[in-house]
Order: sequence, then structure tokens, then C-alpha cells
Amino acid sequence: MKQKAVNIAEKLTLFAEHWSPKIVATYNGNEVMVAKISGEYVWHKHEDTDDFFFVVSGHLLIETERGDVELGPGELYVVPRGVMHRPIAEHEVHILLIEPRGEPNSGDPATAATKVWI
Amino acid sequence: MKQKAVNIAEKLTLFAEHWSPKIVATYNGNEVMVAKISGEYVWHKHEDTDDFFFVVSGHLLIETERGDVELGPGELYVVPRGVMHRPIAEHEVHILLIEPRGEPNSGDPATAATKVWI
Repeated sequence: MKQKAVNIAEKLTLFAEHWSPKIVATYNGNEVMVAKISGEYVWHKHEDTDDFFFVVSGHLLIETERGDVELGPGELYVVPRGVMHRPIAEHEVHILLIEPRGEPNSGDPATAATKVWI
Repeated sequence: MKQKAVNIAEKLTLFAEHWSPKIVATYNGNEVMVAKISGEYVWHKHEDTDDFFFVVSGHLLIETERGDVELGPGELYVVPRGVMHRPIAEHEVHILLIEPRGEPNSGDPATAATKVWI
């Protein structure tokens, strides 16, 4: 039986909405997700988990309380747990994210997006 | 203070050896690594962890006891814990890997590569 790899670019063609991560795989209880983002997100933090960002296309600015990070295609950054941060995409950016299963993407269940598989 | 993103392509220029993962970041006790691989690896499994593969360049075949997986650039696959598998790279392949800190890449401390930061 043939197993199937996850093609990131292909997954990114399946939806259009921003700030709505879609699960494409799991790794040890973490959700591996793709997302399209545009504009400014809210300042937030994750108390109990690091926050993994990998840029597939576009340019992403992550403001953090420790300084700003700029990411282009093929670049990754892990925001340490507890660190306030705010992703900003001047133009649409496509990213790969990793967060523990059930972690609210906004750091707050009240404002978090519902994560679904694609 | 400016924080620095990890440029995967740049990291991959810093070493040449095969089957010797280099750590570029950590995420919740996991090591995010880049590696160059060529030829056939050994059949092995990780009893207590999934095994995350993302192909940066080249074409990777992962034989598993559940079937084979072919990965091209921009494709990922997570080998579930406990599943026997063997990566094969007919030509050199550049990959991003995620494994728990200290996990032997061969599944066996006796044959594992020493992982160092770059």
C-alpha cells in the first residue's frame, strides 16, 4: 500500500481564508498546520508552548517583546513560550505552523480559530 | 534588538556530510534539524516518537512496513512511532527533521549520529 506525503503547496490551494490554520499532519500530539495570513494579528502569548513558524511564501514580520523577526520563504522561527508576539503580513503570507493539539492560535480560546483537517 | 530567523538553505551550505543531522532550532523539547542524505539508510523504528520529515530539495523515498512514501520538495511525512522505516535517497536530498531532544536518529544509540548545532 502506498502512503501519501503531504504536499504543502497543494494544501494551500484548498482554502482562501486568512488566520484560519488547517491541520495537515500530527507529530507527537502536535498539529502541523498550514495557514494564509494577511494584515496584523493580535499581540498574544502561549504560556505553555513554543510557537513554530515556517514561511512557505511571502514575507512575515513577527514583532516580539524581545525584538522583531523578519522571515522570508524557507525561513523559520520559534517564538519561545511565554513571549508576547504579533505576526504581521503586509501582503499575504503562506506559513507552516506547529502547535500542540488544541492550543488556541490566539493564545485565548475565546478568540481562537477552529482548526480543521484538510 | 533584532531576532534572527533560521534560513534553511543557508544552514545547508554549512556542512557536506550525509546522515548527520544538524540542529537549527528547538520546539518544546524537540530538535529541529537539517540534514543531507544520500543512499540507503538502515531499517529502524522509534518506539516512543513519531518521525517528522520535510523535503527541502531532491526526492526522498521512505520505505515503511505500511507501504512506501515518495516525497519531493515542499512535501512532508510523519512516520508514526513504532513503525519500521528506511529512508532512501537515490541522489542527494536535503531535509528538515524534527525529533525529541536526544532521540537517536537511527533508533539505536549505538549507531546514531551525534547531533550538533549549526
